[in-house]
Amino acid sequence: MCIPGARAINRGMPRYRLIIEYDGRPFVGWQRQDNGLGVQQILEDAVEALSGEQTLIYGAGRTDAGVHALGQVAHVDLIRAFPTDTVRDALNAHVRPHPVAVLSVDEVSDDFHARFSATSRTYLYRIVNRRAPAALEHGHVWWVPVPLDVAAMDDAAQVLIGKHDFTSFRAAFCQAKSPVKTLDRLNVEVHEGEIHVHAHARSFLHNQVRIMVGSLRLVGEGKWSRDDLRNALDAQDRTVAGQTAVPDGLYLTHVGY
Amino acid sequence: MCIPGARAINRGMPRYRLIIEYDGRPFVGWQRQDNGLGVQQILEDAVEALSGEQTLIYGAGRTDAGVHALGQVAHVDLIRAFPTDTVRDALNAHVRPHPVAVLSVDEVSDDFHARFSATSRTYLYRIVNRRAPAALEHGHVWWVPVPLDVAAMDDAAQVLIGKHDFTSFRAAFCQAKSPVKTLDRLNVEVHEGEIHVHAHARSFLHNQVRIMVGSLRLVGEGKWSRDDLRNALDAQDRTVAGQTAVPDGLYLTHVGY
Repeated sequence: MCIPGARAINRGMPRYRLIIEYDGRPFVGWQRQDNGLGVQQILEDAVEALSGEQTLIYGAGRTDAGVHALGQVAHVDLIRAFPTDTVRDALNAHVRPHPVAVLSVDEVSDDFHARFSATSRTYLYRIVNRRAPAALEHGHVWWVPVPLDVAAMDDAAQVLIGKHDFTSFRAAFCQAKSPVKTLDRLNVEVHEGEIHVHAHARSFLHNQVRIMVGSLRLVGEGKWSRDDLRNALDAQDRTVAGQTAVPDGLYLTHVGY
Repeated sequence: MCIPGARAINRGMPRYRLIIEYDGRPFVGWQRQDNGLGVQQILEDAVEALSGEQTLIYGAGRTDAGVHALGQVAHVDLIRAFPTDTVRDALNAHVRPHPVAVLSVDEVSDDFHARFSATSRTYLYRIVNRRAPAALEHGHVWWVPVPLDVAAMDDAAQVLIGKHDFTSFRAAFCQAKSPVKTLDRLNVEVHEGEIHVHAHARSFLHNQVRIMVGSLRLVGEGKWSRDDLRNALDAQDRTVAGQTAVPDGLYLTHVGY
């Protein structure tokens, strides 16, 4: 008698791509962890409630604790096929009351992998730059009370564009094999009274966006020049770059394939 | 011996105008009440912490429980004069950890009254119109899962412009002497993926904006025509208008003087 193995079963299972929004505040991050609730776990539990099967959900970006997503992408294999609208509505019902929303669901081919097929990630970092704290957007922005020179920040940011060793902008605990990344876009602009930093690359090192933003703050305050930022990059030494900006202001907005 | 009365003291006290932002979720509304915390009380306690005096703060708009403000205006008299930046920073320190922020403080003349001197109020109502619930903006928007026709809503809204008896769009418990108000602006537009309703008038009846939005939803769903909205206005009967939209989406954005 032949009992099909997990791998054999797997080949016939439909694969779904999810686009997900979440508020990072109550979570330890995207990944399932022992010390608290991860968004991944919320969604895996919701899938189990829908299909009755334990399964793994793979996300494109492992956002840290407190980091938000407007367009996280994940994939999951289900034993049974459901209409995509049913999957979306059922998951949204089952994730309650957590601040997680499945914006859309598509059926994709077996060779689609949310993380490994991704060709780009786009992040937004929001700063409220005024004397008064952020009341409405507390937890959703970085409050910086000292005045920042946005034009100087945007100008300096351009020295980071291109292929570089980003060791200076990498968390000590980053597990990437190589510190070399290609940064495609880093722009700083005023948007409806906030300062927005837009970052776009194939992939980022752990905390890279937040350390770049923390360093750009030094430029905005007038403590650093454009050359100081370039020197920090060239130093390949985490201790010379700026602080790691708080997670509150960071959003994974888009994943490209 | 002459002991000066409170009124005599009052004449020499400096008056300050505050512009205030708050997240309405944890509050029973602007006004101090017995059944919970009002924004007014938070600020009056903060003033007492600054100046050591119990005092009253007068707000331009009495926002309800759950309603937010980006530009509430209030005035307060202090016994001692402080620099305006000191008042702002001290109040922001003392309101912690409540989601209230004093954006600016100006010294104004004795005849300025936040409520009675106001010549206009502007409100914004935010709707998230999609199948998936609002994860990041939960509590800050009205989630409407059925598709809304924004152009039809904006077109119909124009029948409410001008001087009318707004009895149909007035809470049963509204205490205004007259139901006649002049609505200067009511526009519906798409803004960064949300539906925004902008309302502008000298003053509004209790729940007027929320009942107008609840009625415009019926137009957006195709259940009501522009004429149905006009008939609801003409009926002068609260029971014929739409539901009172949830407070979550409503923001007092500006008060004019």
